[in-house]
Amino acid sequence: MDDLKLSSLKNTNFKRTVVSVGEQSIGTGFTIIAGPCTVENENQTLTIARAVKKAGAHILRGGAFKPRTSPYSFQGLGQEGLEILSRARQETGLPIVTEIMDTRHIAMVSEYADMFQIGSRNMQNFTLLKEVGKTDKPVLLKRGMNSTLEEWINCAEYILSEGNPHVVLCERGIRTFESYTRNTLDLSIIPAVKEITHLPVIVDPSHATGRASLVERMCLAAVAAGSDGIMIEVHPDPKKALCDRDQLLTLSEFDGLAQKIQKMYRAMNDILAPSV
Amino acid sequence: MDDLKLSSLKNTNFKRTVVSVGEQSIGTGFTIIAGPCTVENENQTLTIARAVKKAGAHILRGGAFKPRTSPYSFQGLGQEGLEILSRARQETGLPIVTEIMDTRHIAMVSEYADMFQIGSRNMQNFTLLKEVGKTDKPVLLKRGMNSTLEEWINCAEYILSEGNPHVVLCERGIRTFESYTRNTLDLSIIPAVKEITHLPVIVDPSHATGRASLVERMCLAAVAAGSDGIMIEVHPDPKKALCDRDQLLTLSEFDGLAQKIQKMYRAMNDILAPSV
Amino acid sequence: MDDLKLSSLKNTNFKRTVVSVGEQSIGTGFTIIAGPCTVENENQTLTIARAVKKAGAHILRGGAFKPRTSPYSFQGLGQEGLEILSRARQETGLPIVTEIMDTRHIAMVSEYADMFQIGSRNMQNFTLLKEVGKTDKPVLLKRGMNSTLEEWINCAEYILSEGNPHVVLCERGIRTFESYTRNTLDLSIIPAVKEITHLPVIVDPSHATGRASLVERMCLAAVAAGSDGIMIEVHPDPKKALCDRDQLLTLSEFDGLAQKIQKMYRAMNDILAPSV
Amino acid sequence: MDDLKLSSLKNTNFKRTVVSVGEQSIGTGFTIIAGPCTVENENQTLTIARAVKKAGAHILRGGAFKPRTSPYSFQGLGQEGLEILSRARQETGLPIVTEIMDTRHIAMVSEYADMFQIGSRNMQNFTLLKEVGKTDKPVLLKRGMNSTLEEWINCAEYILSEGNPHVVLCERGIRTFESYTRNTLDLSIIPAVKEITHLPVIVDPSHATGRASLVERMCLAAVAAGSDGIMIEVHPDPKKALCDRDQLLTLSEFDGLAQKIQKMYRAMNDILAPSV
Repeated sequence: MDDLKLSSLKNTNFKRTVVSVGEQSIGTGFTIIAGPCTVENENQTLTIARAVKKAGAHILRGGAFKPRTSPYSFQGLGQEGLEILSRARQETGLPIVTEIMDTRHIAMVSEYADMFQIGSRNMQNFTLLKEVGKTDKPVLLKRGMNSTLEEWINCAEYILSEGNPHVVLCERGIRTFESYTRNTLDLSIIPAVKEITHLPVIVDPSHATGRASLVERMCLAAVAAGSDGIMIEVHPDPKKALCDRDQLLTLSEFDGLAQKIQKMYRAMNDILAPSV
Repeated sequence: MDDLKLSSLKNTNFKRTVVSVGEQSIGTGFTIIAGPCTVENENQTLTIARAVKKAGAHILRGGAFKPRTSPYSFQGLGQEGLEILSRARQETGLPIVTEIMDTRHIAMVSEYADMFQIGSRNMQNFTLLKEVGKTDKPVLLKRGMNSTLEEWINCAEYILSEGNPHVVLCERGIRTFESYTRNTLDLSIIPAVKEITHLPVIVDPSHATGRASLVERMCLAAVAAGSDGIMIEVHPDPKKALCDRDQLLTLSEFDGLAQKIQKMYRAMNDILAPSV
Repeated sequence: MDDLKLSSLKNTNFKRTVVSVGEQSIGTGFTIIAGPCTVENENQTLTIARAVKKAGAHILRGGAFKPRTSPYSFQGLGQEGLEILSRARQETGLPIVTEIMDTRHIAMVSEYADMFQIGSRNMQNFTLLKEVGKTDKPVLLKRGMNSTLEEWINCAEYILSEGNPHVVLCERGIRTFESYTRNTLDLSIIPAVKEITHLPVIVDPSHATGRASLVERMCLAAVAAGSDGIMIEVHPDPKKALCDRDQLLTLSEFDGLAQKIQKMYRAMNDILAPSV
Repeated sequence: MDDLKLSSLKNTNFKRTVVSVGEQSIGTGFTIIAGPCTVENENQTLTIARAVKKAGAHILRGGAFKPRTSPYSFQGLGQEGLEILSRARQETGLPIVTEIMDTRHIAMVSEYADMFQIGSRNMQNFTLLKEVGKTDKPVLLKRGMNSTLEEWINCAEYILSEGNPHVVLCERGIRTFESYTRNTLDLSIIPAVKEITHLPVIVDPSHATGRASLVERMCLAAVAAGSDGIMIEVHPDPKKALCDRDQLLTLSEFDGLAQKIQKMYRAMNDILAPSV
């Protein structure tokens, strides 16, 4: 940690940051973010938005610009996708988080979204970090697939050092040799983040596991690990989704899960309450 | 999975295995295993055994033969260590699990211990696997630091195929690039194990994280992830311990943790109970 | 490789691409690129440029914009650094390769440099890839620290698919658990790249090993592995360098190494020549 | 490296160890070891032995006891395999190296083989290391798939500390996220080993790459990296081999390769010779 000066982060008496996203807050209570991997069309997105709102989600996620391994894969609907997300917010009141990949899109995405997402592949895109750091919009900073805790925190610092304190971290699995899961969800990093920063941190079990059958257990474990929230991918008909089919929950699965998460969060508060 | 014939394991209608260890069982309810990393002397081990028994632990762990990176590090007390563990069982009634590294020790260790532990470094010591497979003593099979799920399950199969069905798996962290933690605890492997085998599986957060400050959260997350138990290292005075100092809980920390784990297990039963 | 359509790459009868950089070519003969990690001042850069030119280097490397883990580390001289590089080219005739991190710098960097470098952290910065793909300037595309061969080739395809065919790949070590070296140099990827693409590929042993003492052997091994070139960091006084001190060769070490590399390349031609 | 006391290894003025294997030596000149992955029958093994002897190999490899992921895969011919290897030595004069997995086989394997091989999975089987350390037979110690340099050297020390100084190290690829190759061959570890120990070190490109098409280049690169030898798997008819089919060279491919390796070794001596 030679050149590490986490002036704004390293402080054992720190006051925890709470980040406002529209009328919601991350860092107090437990925040549920849900939505499609990618905005496919208005009907799909509104259907999902209504369902997750009803199930108790606080924020709607959805990709308009998609970082894809191949240039020939579907790259997202772009501005049209942002407009659809915006209509979903109008109807449901859910604030919107969506990925930004290009500094030239900052003004446009700002008009539609309530929170920028910096994806795993762009975690060390320092140019992008600095530019979102010059705005006052909240930023969801995903951990790079091969990023150490130290590197991740330093990327948060790139945003903070430009003047934007509204950063939420998101663990989304790291790349390992294990192939049963898409990546390896590193839940031990949640209490580790809490030890060394004042920033909120959430968990994305959908991308981490890549398997819908593992998402429920990892959501409950995330609550137990002390996460401030989770972000889950859902779809009315996973088999027909344009991407990430294996990891998507159906709307009804999400409804059941959201209830369990809420019970779990209350149970954790009881378990950790100081006994009288 | 070319040459994989998990005849005894791959079966979607499987009945879950429950493994008896002395008068305890793993695979029904939630099992807490605790004890020193290494048996240092009688006083240390008895002090720990009494404390963990009182706090609610079900099984006592303790190393008599220690696999150490360097040949010049302390290698454990050997048979003397086994005798101390045996006295701890006599006094507390806790069954004993201890590591075995040498096929020539099987008879000796069998006399003292209730369960063999196969350590991470020996997960693919096929000779050792086959020999414990010829006994009828329960075996705790730790996942290798760089072992895939498939390789791990095949190692269990080496034991089962020799006639010993009493195998419990133990996730203890995998080796990754992250250095804040000693290894990366892979909690997503717990529901994955449940999907493809009938064997019980527990979690060792002490070795996985290498940091006492992270153990509590990882125990609670392990319960939420569906683990059948946890194994924790404790010590009356961690700073004076002969090995693994940074990851040891004090006896009083363990006492508090054991209560939280029990509350957590009850809460999970409520959360997952089918609503009427 | 579900969504992989490497139309321009997958073709077993392919003609190998040769990329012109100024008056030099990569993909025919063996290309030696050398220079400072970062442009520190005019004197340092000109001293180095003269020395590596004399020793037989073909292209000068040097960073003006530096991607640093921490926002508080030295970030490079920016445009001033580009001007210094430009003067070094004027004096020595060596073409310049320098890293670009920001799409807004493309016009500026184009004025000064002969080849763009896309660094490891930006390998999947798809916005940047597309923008350099719209120019006709050669691009040196470093492999991401945790990038598979498939992902890397797809990133090249992002550039090619925008119309710029002048891409050279650069292996620079991948992130593993080994800590003796900074990263693990993956020389087996060199013949693998040759099997599946027509693009030239070079090796950066300085960043891969992070140790000056290992650079010579890895350069010679790179020649033997079939690399089209190497890129080496040098400095007149490594202990006083502003970054990467442990991996820098002195000018005199580089001089000796350049001669060995040339002998090695000739020897390889003899060894692989079909016997009559 | 807290508890590391490499008393016999850490010494900058060390004299390099040369290990005699039958009438061959490893650590002086360049040693070529070749043979089948597994001894399948007498005809196969004798055919291979004659061919590799004629092509210039110095030592014959061949597995009689095979460590297999699954207990239901072919486990090797056992003692019958050792007898076949012994007849191959009688006929060709080539010394034999073969894997040992069980301490109870030491006496038996000693009768037939000239060198023990400790496989990757058993690198930290400390019981086995100590027992071969009590013999005076040379030991080929393969690096564990997830072993750091420090751990590997410590395993050599387990053998040395019991009194057997005849240890040769063997790099065979480490486990990474890259899937194009079976493992990632770490050639930078060769000069690293030379920096910190006096032991000879060789390279196994067959297991490392898992692809016959990459073996030639990796052999030549191993020579350039300073390896003391290579170990290659060959087979008269790779498609019919009982294991490791994708990585086997044919006898004719091996013949061509052995000649190139010898030319390469001579070229390296010229390149590194101090100029007069």
